[in-house]
Amino acid sequence: MQQTRLTGKDVAEHDNKESCWVIIHGKAYDVTEFLPEHPGGAGVILKHAGKDATEAFEPIHPPDTLDKYLDRSKHLGGVDMSTVIAEEKSFDPDEESRQQRIALMPPLGKCFNLHDFESVARQVMRRGAWAYYSSGADDEITLRENHSAYHKIWFRPRILVDVEQVDSSTSMLGSKCEVPFYVTATALGKLGHLEGEVVLTRAASRHGVIQMIPTLGSCSFDEIVDAKRGDQVQWLQLYVNQDREITKRIVQHAEKRGCKGLFVTVDAPQLGRREKDIRTRFEGAASDVQKNNPGAIDRSQGAARAISTFIDPSLSWKDIPYFKSITKMPIVLKGVQRVEDVLTAIEHGIPAVVLSNHGGRQLDTAPSAIEILADVMPELRRRGLQDKIEVYVDGGVRRATDIIKALCLGAKGVGIGRPFLYAMSAYGEPGVVHAMQLLKDEFEVAMRLIGARSVGELGPEFVDVRGLSMHSVPTPADFLSSDVYDRLVVPAFAVKSKL
Amino acid sequence: MQQTRLTGKDVAEHDNKESCWVIIHGKAYDVTEFLPEHPGGAGVILKHAGKDATEAFEPIHPPDTLDKYLDRSKHLGGVDMSTVIAEEKSFDPDEESRQQRIALMPPLGKCFNLHDFESVARQVMRRGAWAYYSSGADDEITLRENHSAYHKIWFRPRILVDVEQVDSSTSMLGSKCEVPFYVTATALGKLGHLEGEVVLTRAASRHGVIQMIPTLGSCSFDEIVDAKRGDQVQWLQLYVNQDREITKRIVQHAEKRGCKGLFVTVDAPQLGRREKDIRTRFEGAASDVQKNNPGAIDRSQGAARAISTFIDPSLSWKDIPYFKSITKMPIVLKGVQRVEDVLTAIEHGIPAVVLSNHGGRQLDTAPSAIEILADVMPELRRRGLQDKIEVYVDGGVRRATDIIKALCLGAKGVGIGRPFLYAMSAYGEPGVVHAMQLLKDEFEVAMRLIGARSVGELGPEFVDVRGLSMHSVPTPADFLSSDVYDRLVVPAFAVKSKL
Amino acid sequence: MQQTRLTGKDVAEHDNKESCWVIIHGKAYDVTEFLPEHPGGAGVILKHAGKDATEAFEPIHPPDTLDKYLDRSKHLGGVDMSTVIAEEKSFDPDEESRQQRIALMPPLGKCFNLHDFESVARQVMRRGAWAYYSSGADDEITLRENHSAYHKIWFRPRILVDVEQVDSSTSMLGSKCEVPFYVTATALGKLGHLEGEVVLTRAASRHGVIQMIPTLGSCSFDEIVDAKRGDQVQWLQLYVNQDREITKRIVQHAEKRGCKGLFVTVDAPQLGRREKDIRTRFEGAASDVQKNNPGAIDRSQGAARAISTFIDPSLSWKDIPYFKSITKMPIVLKGVQRVEDVLTAIEHGIPAVVLSNHGGRQLDTAPSAIEILADVMPELRRRGLQDKIEVYVDGGVRRATDIIKALCLGAKGVGIGRPFLYAMSAYGEPGVVHAMQLLKDEFEVAMRLIGARSVGELGPEFVDVRGLSMHSVPTPADFLSSDVYDRLVVPAFAVKSKL
Amino acid sequence: MQQTRLTGKDVAEHDNKESCWVIIHGKAYDVTEFLPEHPGGAGVILKHAGKDATEAFEPIHPPDTLDKYLDRSKHLGGVDMSTVIAEEKSFDPDEESRQQRIALMPPLGKCFNLHDFESVARQVMRRGAWAYYSSGADDEITLRENHSAYHKIWFRPRILVDVEQVDSSTSMLGSKCEVPFYVTATALGKLGHLEGEVVLTRAASRHGVIQMIPTLGSCSFDEIVDAKRGDQVQWLQLYVNQDREITKRIVQHAEKRGCKGLFVTVDAPQLGRREKDIRTRFEGAASDVQKNNPGAIDRSQGAARAISTFIDPSLSWKDIPYFKSITKMPIVLKGVQRVEDVLTAIEHGIPAVVLSNHGGRQLDTAPSAIEILADVMPELRRRGLQDKIEVYVDGGVRRATDIIKALCLGAKGVGIGRPFLYAMSAYGEPGVVHAMQLLKDEFEVAMRLIGARSVGELGPEFVDVRGLSMHSVPTPADFLSSDVYDRLVVPAFAVKSKL
Repeated sequence: MQQTRLTGKDVAEHDNKESCWVIIHGKAYDVTEFLPEHPGGAGVILKHAGKDATEAFEPIHPPDTLDKYLDRSKHLGGVDMSTVIAEEKSFDPDEESRQQRIALMPPLGKCFNLHDFESVARQVMRRGAWAYYSSGADDEITLRENHSAYHKIWFRPRILVDVEQVDSSTSMLGSKCEVPFYVTATALGKLGHLEGEVVLTRAASRHGVIQMIPTLGSCSFDEIVDAKRGDQVQWLQLYVNQDREITKRIVQHAEKRGCKGLFVTVDAPQLGRREKDIRTRFEGAASDVQKNNPGAIDRSQGAARAISTFIDPSLSWKDIPYFKSITKMPIVLKGVQRVEDVLTAIEHGIPAVVLSNHGGRQLDTAPSAIEILADVMPELRRRGLQDKIEVYVDGGVRRATDIIKALCLGAKGVGIGRPFLYAMSAYGEPGVVHAMQLLKDEFEVAMRLIGARSVGELGPEFVDVRGLSMHSVPTPADFLSSDVYDRLVVPAFAVKSKL
Repeated sequence: MQQTRLTGKDVAEHDNKESCWVIIHGKAYDVTEFLPEHPGGAGVILKHAGKDATEAFEPIHPPDTLDKYLDRSKHLGGVDMSTVIAEEKSFDPDEESRQQRIALMPPLGKCFNLHDFESVARQVMRRGAWAYYSSGADDEITLRENHSAYHKIWFRPRILVDVEQVDSSTSMLGSKCEVPFYVTATALGKLGHLEGEVVLTRAASRHGVIQMIPTLGSCSFDEIVDAKRGDQVQWLQLYVNQDREITKRIVQHAEKRGCKGLFVTVDAPQLGRREKDIRTRFEGAASDVQKNNPGAIDRSQGAARAISTFIDPSLSWKDIPYFKSITKMPIVLKGVQRVEDVLTAIEHGIPAVVLSNHGGRQLDTAPSAIEILADVMPELRRRGLQDKIEVYVDGGVRRATDIIKALCLGAKGVGIGRPFLYAMSAYGEPGVVHAMQLLKDEFEVAMRLIGARSVGELGPEFVDVRGLSMHSVPTPADFLSSDVYDRLVVPAFAVKSKL
Repeated sequence: MQQTRLTGKDVAEHDNKESCWVIIHGKAYDVTEFLPEHPGGAGVILKHAGKDATEAFEPIHPPDTLDKYLDRSKHLGGVDMSTVIAEEKSFDPDEESRQQRIALMPPLGKCFNLHDFESVARQVMRRGAWAYYSSGADDEITLRENHSAYHKIWFRPRILVDVEQVDSSTSMLGSKCEVPFYVTATALGKLGHLEGEVVLTRAASRHGVIQMIPTLGSCSFDEIVDAKRGDQVQWLQLYVNQDREITKRIVQHAEKRGCKGLFVTVDAPQLGRREKDIRTRFEGAASDVQKNNPGAIDRSQGAARAISTFIDPSLSWKDIPYFKSITKMPIVLKGVQRVEDVLTAIEHGIPAVVLSNHGGRQLDTAPSAIEILADVMPELRRRGLQDKIEVYVDGGVRRATDIIKALCLGAKGVGIGRPFLYAMSAYGEPGVVHAMQLLKDEFEVAMRLIGARSVGELGPEFVDVRGLSMHSVPTPADFLSSDVYDRLVVPAFAVKSKL
Repeated sequence: MQQTRLTGKDVAEHDNKESCWVIIHGKAYDVTEFLPEHPGGAGVILKHAGKDATEAFEPIHPPDTLDKYLDRSKHLGGVDMSTVIAEEKSFDPDEESRQQRIALMPPLGKCFNLHDFESVARQVMRRGAWAYYSSGADDEITLRENHSAYHKIWFRPRILVDVEQVDSSTSMLGSKCEVPFYVTATALGKLGHLEGEVVLTRAASRHGVIQMIPTLGSCSFDEIVDAKRGDQVQWLQLYVNQDREITKRIVQHAEKRGCKGLFVTVDAPQLGRREKDIRTRFEGAASDVQKNNPGAIDRSQGAARAISTFIDPSLSWKDIPYFKSITKMPIVLKGVQRVEDVLTAIEHGIPAVVLSNHGGRQLDTAPSAIEILADVMPELRRRGLQDKIEVYVDGGVRRATDIIKALCLGAKGVGIGRPFLYAMSAYGEPGVVHAMQLLKDEFEVAMRLIGARSVGELGPEFVDVRGLSMHSVPTPADFLSSDVYDRLVVPAFAVKSKL
């Protein structure tokens, strides 16, 4: 049916709480009734009431959002965009200097390790996007512990082994892959790159790397699956919805589209407090907020809270049979954090777990996955259960040596999230491809240097973990004594005469 | 009896050691004979001899001080304040810039955790007030250890528990409360806020939090009790006076006014040396002091010393029966610091103890309460005494995760002092209310994330304390070697051409 | 046969991939066919195609390179250098300021310890040379751990021993030497000093120190041997070539020339990734490289990779008999890193091993040699094998106390590499002589102070190694809490009046 | 016999190596023959040849030096000082700014702890004097460990003890003293204060503190003894001279003058390398020294080396009977560093030892005395020898809590050196008196707070030493990862408008 196109003026009249229309991708929507339900709060929509909201909508909503969540009767049809008055962008000095940094950013070839991507991304990403990706819970102690825990593990390299050929391939959940790491699920890919998660899909395809598709992607699930090539393997990460029918629909659709594993997130009955994210969000909104009335900003607590209100906090072990009843995909628990729960998982016939603290984004001073792994595997071996379950870890991995340490301690594979997001945000697909290549190169070198030819040869005898479980916090500094200390110095160069 | 009002001139004639009058809240007092007894020294009074001393008197003396300590015959009656020559305030650049900072201070809504209040308070409080609140003993190592000790404890979260409902309520000394923390006693509330401790009372009432009333409050005991609402619970903190009759009067009055617990401070036979407080005090007074004659300033050793000279250093276990004889309130020892003394307390029929080092203000390198707790509870359990006594801790608590760690290790409740003072000093009652709300929010999130639904479910299996008792002091740095080390760098951005 | 000299113009015509000539030390060479084989990549040669390449060639190729690797038919004979157009050097501000620093450098006498040489060298060396010498693998954690591990070992000095006479002499592999340290093999000496490794030879001779000759020296093996004086002892370090005939030729030639030991490097089946070196190399070449095409720079990965492509990664224990068959020199394994491999070495009849991680240049988070030593020797003693093998260590030695600690733990001798390179690069032969003298002086003082008169008296009872195997990584900082902490201060000096 | 006074001109003619006269305190001396014997080298004398050398001579030579070491025939008699041309002092910008700092130095009353004196002294002392006092061996790791080791010990305070009366008195070597610390021997007091060691004597007298008289004082032994008052107790510290007759004369003279103990230094068969001292010395002399000829400055190695060449490195256990034969004073070994040597001392009938590493000035990475003490005392108790010997410690003591920790662990007394030198250098006798008073005040407070009334009550149950023997050296920092981390921030204040 041919409809008369709406004009900008038509829409502009609905610019308030009583009647709120917005334009997204050239179409108008009546969101008046939806306002109180919006997970991100009504306020953020009302800012765009009567106007084109595409730019704000895009990065944090998959394209099928409106179809899924807004009744068709509220889809008001196309707008003649030539009649919409373009909002004059106010000059934004932060954005200005960001654009300057982008113009001067180092060429991709100067990134020699995963940290390098992070350093570039921090400079070239939008502040809110950076805050969302990089933030962790509370004091971000766990966030940082995740990587530094790897420095407590030292190698015991083996010499005089013929390492001419090194094979990095392995299998996970029965699927072969070129390398023992996978792209773990991360949300809101379009915050970092216009195209979102499909960039990761394409790069993973280039390197034979498995990708885990997030529930909270910016791209729709189908877009991400459509982007895969050949027999590329994908898994589904699942936040369990309070409405089990929605969950069932998502899971069965994923299975139909070929997903090879279902990773149920179990460390997020509620999303954690990420103050960097909250603060950034709030700083931007500061002028709107009534001074000294914190209640007024309750629903603006960062991107994380906005997108996650549907998650079911009542999820428990008794739900496991339900998941088994709706899918044949292997069901993997993502976010296990103690050995007792690994044992319970085995009792429930779970074929795999991911030891994870959700990238340090949930509970601060939760231990690193690598430390939990070093507790779990000896206990499994003691009970003869080491082959009953595949154990994965994620969080803090930045070097191939980190991966090898996890494999030595018994991990089947290692998930990597943020580093690939940073590579994507800074350099797009070539960035992710290069990042994966660097890891592969590092992996091959490190395998040769510890004297191992294949993933199968790795074992606990290659690592020294004596210091791993020590959580050392230095005694507070004696500033008076250290301040009066006169440091030794190196020889001084002569001062150049000013003549 | 109608008196003729005194004039400013009348008072001004008594401006010396031989005859010293001062005006406080519009009334004149003859303090000549009191001079040698003044705990803060005669000098500080003589500065105001013959003048209006209200501003200096106010924050560090409860309003009933003059009634209690100065004979009625020395109360000279009202002064016609219009005849008192207002002292011209000299320009104070520090105060000037403090006022500027106050004008620019962040809105309350930007405080996302307890540290944030401290950061704001430090900027907007008077220097002397900040020094009094924030200072600790000697090198302040214990002061800082109190918080950092919590970072040596790591969680062992449990997954797949239905945590839809989380209940933070508990009971302490038989009284119900909404949360497992209480407002512990702190002195001199008016240094931070004009209204003093009643601000805390009102905020505590809003959140169902128990308040411990300090002996050394700026408000009188009765003012603080009068400020409570409904069945709000209050306790009394007691510094035991050398004059037991005064002590008896205080205790029995508190019981009559409804206090539900008597917390006898046992870690302060003498108040500690707090050099930050002393130095601040002394800097202000520097011009008065004879150069290189330190003896001349003996009595100016900070606010802490000035207000505490009455405390009885001879208090001992043999006084316990006396306390039992004068009150039916449960007698709690505040400041226990070793397991042996908890056992002795049980022998004396003490129903509760507070493990505490007095906020790091007494003995430097005394251990944190949380570390003592981790020693005490296993010993009590070993002896089957864990239910014979309630154990509380205070000191260094800044996060709900800190509270949960203490509860897991067996604490019945957790005292919080300075953070609420800072919230009050920066933002008044709304600040304290917001601070408590933040703790409640953090508590709920953290309980969900460790997989516990109520305080009763918490136990030692949720925490890893292997590193807690390690007091690690790094070997002094090898500066030559670290100074010559050439640090790795991240990729450089191009330098923008100056053209 | 008398040849007509070539002119600059003749050579200049061969300036491309199809026909590539270069001039080195006044002679022309046709390297067209050699281009694809050049370990450093064709690109670096093509930069000099048709021109005089001497300056670039010199520091990284021994003088006999062209004779060895380029067929005589490609040696085109002398060039009339007066006809060669000197390349106009572009102004290099980095080089300019380096020259200024050289002019102002501290006199040698101001170097009081080995760190001092490093601090000077860093300032006066060319950036690429410094990067090559100073770089380590990945995050350079092992590089730095090598020295800091010595700080985990503390002395247990003995008093009231007559230490008037202290004897620092010892023997290694049967050769006497004045001191228990030797000059270990390091590559590319001409990067630091025009004359290269012979500078070390001469300095070693002055102090009775053994020198290990590197496979990858800038001087030819024969030049280094020719530089020795009297009965000076030299050893040969060997990277095993994939072509065993080349290896055999090198080994047998070394034996013929009097080398007293063959140190087979076993920790480098592939050279490690040294990002500082790679980054420096790449920064220099940045303008040439196609932006965002990292593949284009694959072969420019630092000096280390360029010179090492011939090393055989298939070297294994089964090659040991071969080495025994081609030489009578004692065969020493350099780069052993775990006790199991020391035991295997004994089984293979190996008379000595060097515990080493290759100066932290190979595998990051490989442990320090001194820590491995503390594991190895007790195990050897437990098995009664302590006299079956000589154990050497290298890496991180900067102080005579470091040497003594190693000897106490059972090392026969200690290798020192970089410190002598730095002394040479900054001050030439007098620098190296002075560095060795400083070590000798430190050694004598330290021996007296621990109460030992000779190397033979040293033993494990002189050291406390309880902390050595602890790899402590502090829990990540709680920045909010430490940032709000108000540090104690020392007394302030009065501010000088501006009048 | 009346002599004709010499003139400046007479002396000025002897200004070279062949004939070298100098004027000291108005008298001329012919030191030509003494030049080669001068412990500080001939060069330093020749600088003053033919001139008045008093200023340079004074601080590092006791006044009886010339009488003792220069034959009477070389004493040339008085000089008419009016005829001596005063050397024009060249303008010294360092001295200029030092004088400015002295003018602005904080009043003594602002020093609240021992660190404060050090901070002031560092600013107001001559650079060379500061370097001599403050320097330690090599990297000064032991120097700093000495104090920081005390931070590894934590208290276990006792509550509810009647601490109204606290008694700090004790006895050492049978002499009563008011406090459990003593002034240990330190050299060259006139570098810090014109009057030298007698300043310490007088201050010690004021507080009932025992003083140990140094062999290398700037004042003569007799001057220091003459300065004592009443029954003030003094001990003698002895560097044993290679010439035992000199040693015998010194010891017997000390006994005759009333010294109550003989402390034989056993940790200095050779004085340590103190690079800060050496560097400072050398910087001053830089212009004289031939560039790159380090041999030329061999004898200028800091003040320490210059004054100590006579010390006997052959001193051993077999010399003990000799000391017993020449004196009845108790013979104490100063500088014991391992438990085995304490046992040997008991076997030799030694009544006391000082555990000490010579203030970190001898052997770097020697352990702190407090750590050795914690090893020694349990072993003595295990053998029932704890009452056979008095054990003292020194090094790093800055707080009364440090002293109490040492006493708890079994020390009979604690030596304090540098802090009193700094107090003296900055403020003279009042400074030292004040420093001692601060320690006494701290001591009383800390005793009350741990719940102890007298030195005799202290014991190991008051301290937790679990971390004391851990020498923790953090794993080298991962700079890339920490550099890219984006720190959390506290709320920002608004930026003040510039209008």
